[in-house]
Amino acid sequence: VSPRFQLDRLQVVLVAPRNPLNIGAAARAMANFGFHRLRVVNPYQLAFHEARSAVGASSILTAAEEFSTVRQAVADCQLVIGTASVCRREPLHPVQYLANAALLIRKRIAADNTVAMLFGSEKRGLSNAELSHCHWVLRIPTFDDQPSMNLGQAVAICLHEIARNTLPASAPQKSAPAVCSDLERLTRRLLETLSASGYLKPHKPGKSKHPKSPPDEKIRRLVRRLQLSAADAKLLLGILRQILWKIDVLNSHQ
Amino acid sequence: VSPRFQLDRLQVVLVAPRNPLNIGAAARAMANFGFHRLRVVNPYQLAFHEARSAVGASSILTAAEEFSTVRQAVADCQLVIGTASVCRREPLHPVQYLANAALLIRKRIAADNTVAMLFGSEKRGLSNAELSHCHWVLRIPTFDDQPSMNLGQAVAICLHEIARNTLPASAPQKSAPAVCSDLERLTRRLLETLSASGYLKPHKPGKSKHPKSPPDEKIRRLVRRLQLSAADAKLLLGILRQILWKIDVLNSHQ
Repeated sequence: VSPRFQLDRLQVVLVAPRNPLNIGAAARAMANFGFHRLRVVNPYQLAFHEARSAVGASSILTAAEEFSTVRQAVADCQLVIGTASVCRREPLHPVQYLANAALLIRKRIAADNTVAMLFGSEKRGLSNAELSHCHWVLRIPTFDDQPSMNLGQAVAICLHEIARNTLPASAPQKSAPAVCSDLERLTRRLLETLSASGYLKPHKPGKSKHPKSPPDEKIRRLVRRLQLSAADAKLLLGILRQILWKIDVLNSHQ
Repeated sequence: VSPRFQLDRLQVVLVAPRNPLNIGAAARAMANFGFHRLRVVNPYQLAFHEARSAVGASSILTAAEEFSTVRQAVADCQLVIGTASVCRREPLHPVQYLANAALLIRKRIAADNTVAMLFGSEKRGLSNAELSHCHWVLRIPTFDDQPSMNLGQAVAICLHEIARNTLPASAPQKSAPAVCSDLERLTRRLLETLSASGYLKPHKPGKSKHPKSPPDEKIRRLVRRLQLSAADAKLLLGILRQILWKIDVLNSHQ
């Protein structure tokens, strides 16, 4: 069973949504993270119609199933989860915060269970009657100043968290780091340029032969700190070659 | 330094946003996850004005700073990150996926560095010229069918990920589990009810005294599988007491 197929065990259930933009945003987030099963309970009909007929409405929206009650919408499900970002009163349900909730949901869809995730209406969230159909409640941790989340954003955050290990998480291979022989060529050429430009004075015979930190060591350390890729080391070598050439030309014209 | 204060080291920078709802949604997500510093570069003026004057517009929006170029908006920042959920071409920048990117950003704001996070316009995202001001690019992993994310949702997912350890992540203490003496009282009372209701037949002398699984053991195991809280065990004890009383009353009337 591919992870992709398993994501289809999750039913996103929007309860009494009123804003077509939110319905569309929920469907878009589903597509972003590989979920396809959308159910809508008792939607504001104009909003649902507008979302479905919008330009570029996805196949998720056109295939969305409509129900008149939460009971009917979750009848075939083996785990039902309510979502809430606010908690004004003592919770009547066991609460799981998002990170842990996503782990539990992933386990159940991996076991091929049908899981429903309920999102309440924009204004009031899920009622206690609607929540009574849930096994537990998922809460997105938010700050007290603004605990209530936008519906489309709440759906996106939950689905991103549930899908987090089904999509690549590590960065693509960066350009290979430069080898030390290139770094040393760069160090030499930079020192030449610094001398040619007069930034470094020619070694004075009267001075100590062993200063604390001779210029070539300082420049060598600088070049290593840059953590250059092979490509960038080549780029810098070319830049310095051109600068040295220009200084030579100008010197020969004097 | 409190984690709350550190979150203020992050500047959310919206580049050329065109939709007032998206600007408002970005500001709301910032409030949800404890961020306060919003910068807007070259916004579509009507949209910015509408977002700021919307009913319930937050202090984040009214305090938002406006710039005409990305260069000016990030001038005081020590780390600049571009965001992209799509990559149609070979990336010109080092790429970090969200989970790892959030770790890197948390380290920098914990070190009191000023960090800017750039989000591009709804239509085109960030241009290569805008991205050239960035140290690296953050990518939200999405499915190829619908790789491009809604602006407000992208902001919400990124900020949730960066804030994830500054807010509670473990569930509040559930009701304490029932003690075994209560579970045993419940087992006894359930057995009595099953006998009184005729679900369990009285023990027949002819049958084996040691059936494979005597009814009381079966019921005891059932009661343990329910993983009851102390409160729920009490609730069930009360329910069974009432049922037993009712059966007794009805029997005495026969």
